[in-house]
Amino acid sequence: MLVVQKYGGTSVGNCERIQNVANRVARTKKGGHRVVVVVSAMSGETDKLLGYAKQFSELPNSRELDMILSSGERVTSALLAIALEEMGFKAISLSGRGAGMVTDDSHSSARIEHIDPTHINDLLDKDYIIVVAGFQGVTKSGEVTTLGRGGSDLSAVALAGALKAEVCEIYTDVDGVYTTDPRIEPKAKKIEKISYDEMLELASMGAKVLQNRSVELAKKLTVNLVTRSSFNDNEGTLITKEEEIMEQPIVSGIALDKNQARVSIVNVQDRPGIAADIFGALANANVNVDMIVQTIGHDGMTDMDFTIPKTEMENTKRVLMKFEGSVEAIDYDAEIAKVSIVGVGMKSHSGVASKAFGALANDNINIMMISTSEIKISMLINAKYAELAVRSLHDAYELDK
Amino acid sequence: MLVVQKYGGTSVGNCERIQNVANRVARTKKGGHRVVVVVSAMSGETDKLLGYAKQFSELPNSRELDMILSSGERVTSALLAIALEEMGFKAISLSGRGAGMVTDDSHSSARIEHIDPTHINDLLDKDYIIVVAGFQGVTKSGEVTTLGRGGSDLSAVALAGALKAEVCEIYTDVDGVYTTDPRIEPKAKKIEKISYDEMLELASMGAKVLQNRSVELAKKLTVNLVTRSSFNDNEGTLITKEEEIMEQPIVSGIALDKNQARVSIVNVQDRPGIAADIFGALANANVNVDMIVQTIGHDGMTDMDFTIPKTEMENTKRVLMKFEGSVEAIDYDAEIAKVSIVGVGMKSHSGVASKAFGALANDNINIMMISTSEIKISMLINAKYAELAVRSLHDAYELDK
Repeated sequence: MLVVQKYGGTSVGNCERIQNVANRVARTKKGGHRVVVVVSAMSGETDKLLGYAKQFSELPNSRELDMILSSGERVTSALLAIALEEMGFKAISLSGRGAGMVTDDSHSSARIEHIDPTHINDLLDKDYIIVVAGFQGVTKSGEVTTLGRGGSDLSAVALAGALKAEVCEIYTDVDGVYTTDPRIEPKAKKIEKISYDEMLELASMGAKVLQNRSVELAKKLTVNLVTRSSFNDNEGTLITKEEEIMEQPIVSGIALDKNQARVSIVNVQDRPGIAADIFGALANANVNVDMIVQTIGHDGMTDMDFTIPKTEMENTKRVLMKFEGSVEAIDYDAEIAKVSIVGVGMKSHSGVASKAFGALANDNINIMMISTSEIKISMLINAKYAELAVRSLHDAYELDK
Repeated sequence: MLVVQKYGGTSVGNCERIQNVANRVARTKKGGHRVVVVVSAMSGETDKLLGYAKQFSELPNSRELDMILSSGERVTSALLAIALEEMGFKAISLSGRGAGMVTDDSHSSARIEHIDPTHINDLLDKDYIIVVAGFQGVTKSGEVTTLGRGGSDLSAVALAGALKAEVCEIYTDVDGVYTTDPRIEPKAKKIEKISYDEMLELASMGAKVLQNRSVELAKKLTVNLVTRSSFNDNEGTLITKEEEIMEQPIVSGIALDKNQARVSIVNVQDRPGIAADIFGALANANVNVDMIVQTIGHDGMTDMDFTIPKTEMENTKRVLMKFEGSVEAIDYDAEIAKVSIVGVGMKSHSGVASKAFGALANDNINIMMISTSEIKISMLINAKYAELAVRSLHDAYELDK
C-alpha cells in the first residue's frame, strides 16, 4: 500500500518532534507500506522569515518572498531524511522541484498545474522513503513558487492523487473532525467517517482542521484523506466519497461561525437588477458575501439581508454609501453568530430543519435569518446565544450517541 | 564597469545590516556600474542549521546537509533583493542554480566546474542588480551542492571570472590585509596592493581575511580581488597580478602561526627511503606536514625535524610509534611558533634573510628551524617569543613606513 503522510508545523516544531515523526514514519514503513512524507516548516519559522521580509517592504516582491518562505520546508524535509537514514532506512528529501511539482506563476498563491511522478516512482521502486518539502513548487520556467497558507496539505493531497496513494494522512495537533467544537460542547464526539461535501461545509465554518482548498482537491482527485494527531495513536477521521460511508447519520456536525456581520437593507426598490447592482458593487470591492435573504416584496419595495466578514465592515459601508439615497435604511450588526447543522443524510430525510428550529425555540433563541443547502441548514442568531445554540442542536440530533 | 561584491555573514548579520549593504550596493549602482552581489547566510545561521542536523546524526548525509545549509544564503539574497526593490532599483535574487553555477557532485565540498553566465548577462542588460546566493551550486543532474567553508568567496571569484568583472570586492568586518596582525604590532599598516602569491603565503599563516581556495581561484582566473570592510568607507587591499604592482616592496608582511607543533626524530638511520617511509605513513594518516628540515647525516645517521598541526599531535604519535625502535628518540614540542616574512621582492634582493636572522638575534631569540621559498622565509622559534619576534621583524623591514 502507498501511504502519503503530511506533518504540519507543530508536528515538526523542534528536533525532538521531528524524531518523533521519524519514528512514526518508520513504523509505517516497517508495516510493509511505501511511504511518501510531506512536511511543513518548523512552526514559527515561516512567520519569522515573513517578519524579516516585512522589515524591508510592506509588500515584498512575491517572487523574492517565495524564495525566502520555501526555505523552511526544505530544511525540515532534509532533517527528517537524515533522521530516517540514521535509523537505517533509505531516505531522501526532495524540494518542490525535485518532486516534480509544477505550478502556475502566481507567486505566493500558486496553483498546482501538474505533478510528474516519474522521479518519485523510481525512488519508491528503489525502496526509498521520500520526504517532500511541502508548500512549494516551480513554474514551467523553473522559478520557485509557494502555494499559500495551508499549502503543505495541498502538496500532500496532490501527490497522493498523482501517485494514486491508497490514503493521504494529514497529521496535526488535533485528533480529527468533531461533531462540534469540544471547547463549546464537551460531549462532542470524533467523527469516524465524513464525506468531502460535509467536510467542506464544516471547514468553511470554523472547524479549522483542514482548509477547503485541500478538501476540494481531495474530492476532485478522489483521495482518501485522514486527519489525525501526530502526538498520539488515536484513529483520526476519514474524509472520503459519500458512497464509501455506509451508515450515514442524518446530521454529522454542528458548526459555529462568529466572524460574520449582518447587513440589512430596508425598503429597497423592488426592481429588476437592484440585487445585481448591490452585490456587483460589493464583489468589485472584494467583499465576500455569504448568506443572502430577500423577502418577497410588497408595494414595490423589498428588504434584503446578507452577511459579510466582520473584517469587511468598513469597506462595505463605503461601497453601500451610494445606495443610501434609494433605500429607507441600511443597518449593520456585528453581534451575530451563524450556527449550521451539516449532514448528507438531510437529502433523504424530511423534518431535519424543523427539529433545529424547535430546539432553538425551546431555548428562546430568536432566528434572524435562515439559509439552506442540500446538506446544510444555517441560522443567524444573536451572538450571545451562540454556544447555547450549538449545545442545543448537538443534543437535539443526539450527536453524542 | 562590472563590479562583483561579496558580503559575508557578519555584514548581513541582521536586517539593519542588510539594509546597510543595500545602501552600499545602491551607491555602486548609482555610480554607473553594473553590479552582481554575492551574499552569505546571516552569521550564526549556518551553524544553527548544522547543529540541528547533528542532533540526528553525527555524520549527516552530505546531500541532505547541502539541502539544509544552502537555505541560509537563499534567504539573505532574497531579502537584499527586496530591500533594493524598495529603494526603487530593479533587483532579482538567484540561487546557485539560477546563477548557472555548476559543480561536481562532492556534496558539502563541491568544486565549481563551470558557470553559465547567459542568464545573468541577460538580466544585467535589462539593468537588474543581481543578488546571488553564495556558497552553493547544482550538479549536472540538478542536485543542490555547497562549496564548503569560505564558499561564498569562491562563488564571488568564480562569477567575477565568468562575467569578466573589472573587480571582485570581498566585504568583511576587517579593513583589508595588514603588514602583520595589528593586535600584536599596533604600528601594522594596511597594505594597498599585494600579489596573489604573497596573499597565499600570508593567508596560509593566519591572516584570515581570505581563504586560500579563493585567492588561488582569483589567481587562476586573473580576477582583481579587493578585500575591505562593510562597516566603513576605507579603501581596502587590492590583490592582483605581480605585474600590476609597480613599486614592489621587498617584504610585504609578517605572518605568525601558533597552531603548529614540532616533531624531532633524532639519529634516524640515513638510508634511502627512510623519509618516504615516515612521511608516507603520516600522509596515510592525513597528517599535514609543513616545514621539513633534515640535517646532513654523519656516521650513517641523520636528524629530521618537521612541523604538524597541533591538533594532529596524538594522531602523529600513534603513527610514529612503529619507528621508535629504529631511531634514538622522537621529541614533540607544542610550545613553538612559526614567524614568516613574505614578499615577492625577495626574489631580486639579496640579504633579506640575514636581516631577519640579525633582528631575532638582537632580541636573543633562538631560531630552531628555517625554511625558505622564493617569496617567504619561515622561522620556528619558542612560542613565548612569538609576538616579540613579529614586532622585531616588522621594525627591521620598516613596514610601518
